[in-house]
Amino acid sequence: MTGSGVQKPFFIGIDVGGTNIKIGLVDDTGRTLTYHSMPTDQEKGPEDACVRMGLAARRIIAEARVSAGDVVRAGLATPGPMDIPTGMILRPGNLPEWRDFPIRDRACYHVGVPVTFANDANAAAYGEFWRGAGAQYRSMVLLTLGTGIGGGIIVRDMLIEGEHSCGSECGHILVNPSDDAPMDSLGKRGSLESYCNATAVVDRALAGLRSGAASSLAKRQAAGEEITPLLIAEAAEQGDELARNVIMETAYWLAIGIVTFVHTIDPDAVVLGGAMNFGGQESELGRNFLQRIRDEVRPRLLEPLRDKVKIEFASLAGDAGYIGASGLARLEHSKRR
Amino acid sequence: MTGSGVQKPFFIGIDVGGTNIKIGLVDDTGRTLTYHSMPTDQEKGPEDACVRMGLAARRIIAEARVSAGDVVRAGLATPGPMDIPTGMILRPGNLPEWRDFPIRDRACYHVGVPVTFANDANAAAYGEFWRGAGAQYRSMVLLTLGTGIGGGIIVRDMLIEGEHSCGSECGHILVNPSDDAPMDSLGKRGSLESYCNATAVVDRALAGLRSGAASSLAKRQAAGEEITPLLIAEAAEQGDELARNVIMETAYWLAIGIVTFVHTIDPDAVVLGGAMNFGGQESELGRNFLQRIRDEVRPRLLEPLRDKVKIEFASLAGDAGYIGASGLARLEHSKRR
Repeated sequence: MTGSGVQKPFFIGIDVGGTNIKIGLVDDTGRTLTYHSMPTDQEKGPEDACVRMGLAARRIIAEARVSAGDVVRAGLATPGPMDIPTGMILRPGNLPEWRDFPIRDRACYHVGVPVTFANDANAAAYGEFWRGAGAQYRSMVLLTLGTGIGGGIIVRDMLIEGEHSCGSECGHILVNPSDDAPMDSLGKRGSLESYCNATAVVDRALAGLRSGAASSLAKRQAAGEEITPLLIAEAAEQGDELARNVIMETAYWLAIGIVTFVHTIDPDAVVLGGAMNFGGQESELGRNFLQRIRDEVRPRLLEPLRDKVKIEFASLAGDAGYIGASGLARLEHSKRR
Repeated sequence: MTGSGVQKPFFIGIDVGGTNIKIGLVDDTGRTLTYHSMPTDQEKGPEDACVRMGLAARRIIAEARVSAGDVVRAGLATPGPMDIPTGMILRPGNLPEWRDFPIRDRACYHVGVPVTFANDANAAAYGEFWRGAGAQYRSMVLLTLGTGIGGGIIVRDMLIEGEHSCGSECGHILVNPSDDAPMDSLGKRGSLESYCNATAVVDRALAGLRSGAASSLAKRQAAGEEITPLLIAEAAEQGDELARNVIMETAYWLAIGIVTFVHTIDPDAVVLGGAMNFGGQESELGRNFLQRIRDEVRPRLLEPLRDKVKIEFASLAGDAGYIGASGLARLEHSKRR
């Protein structure tokens, strides 16, 4: 122990997103000591980002007034596709300039400690499992709701990363093989993502407007506003029926996917993270959304599971990724000791 | 080593089915030394079965001429539902007289060694992983095709048994949530089982006959024969179009489910076991069935997985269960040592 209950050794967690890179210094219990966020500036390329990760790491270590020698490993989370064993980031959709780059080893060079490499949604799942909504559970499935549908599956402290770095690609399960199912970002029909990501939610609202549904969204669209999940959530909160139906249909399709995950993994809990949570636990809309998911899941589960598997919102919000990355670094450190 | 390359210690594997109980003495490398099969006689109740397991165990140990002291643990596989931590068999559909019975501890009492308890499909999966079609892989999903659709998922030597003994219930994932989807044995619509088990295959053939499809099956039905998957396979082998379509539609729905498992687990391989394999690798029909599954899966996979994940028939047939049960006993023995 050093300072006020801070527990050595320390880990650096780095979460690379399309817009920002978050980097935190985390202790052995998952507590964040110091934290820094910076623009990804993806157009400057991945080497530049790795240089800045190194600078930021030194800065947060200095700010925390801990000995650099007690910082033993870093965790680096990035969007996929990736090759985890070789530490390569391949062709991420939201980082178009970053292609086939040995990001793990370059981050290691600049940060100065060994680096554990992980998928961003998997790292967020591990963060929620270690320190967030899943902290009391032995196994957990995380779904992240946003531009894409990501996921992470943890069974007894083991992250399902897959043999080809595509484990826990929860948005890509098939929930409806029909030819008229919507298409997802990868051009696949009927995946969970095709029904539940931000585009799908907006598309359902637009289809409703086109078919002439009475909705406050029609006025906003006419005023030139772009229909977004946030706008749909606002309208739903004010009692707009179309908006509410669009959100509850999202809940339905998430429920269909969750039944499949539960019968595959049988986890203690399914946790819903990501920005598109319709206000989450703090909002009536968010609570209704969650309750609808639970109500749709329950009757479809095998009887022994019905009252057992918890469905909850995530609790770490945007911190889950870097905390989870540091937790995965800690896991690897303890295995190598 | 004793005898001709036999490797100590030894394990007893027991696979309880609706019709037969299979029991084998297996060495540390998964080789079967001696084997016995007996009727389940489920109507005599589970205690009677446990008494006979004890007698059979002594018999196969004596026949193998090994020292009973080198037999260190048994694995017991039964149908679910079950509670693995407490060793209870609950209300298995195919063993109606066996209800809420402490089968692990009673088997332990009669067999005389500690017992590892497992779900039958999970044990079969571990058997294929240890000694069968999955022996060269690090992770594997097994689907068993028959009266029900069972499954088992193994990731790096860890069986996904679930927190409530319902892990790897692969037949119960949802592949089509439509209201007109068929119903499975548990009254659930649109599960993988509802499209792919023996009943589903027969029902599709019967529906085709009712709608007046020209088929050699019509003559056999008129002659009073019951339409079974075996009869459908025979007709398909002789070129019957209805029968062939019914089987290829089964391949399609299996493929939809397999895409979901692959995007969840990202295993090295998906292995198809169970009796309803339409002749398996030895028959042209079986090979066409497998090829159709592969052809339907491939374009639906994430690009990095398309040429990576193998889809194969199982290789241990009816021996997978007891071999896998002994392998799970071996795994637990090595952890406890």
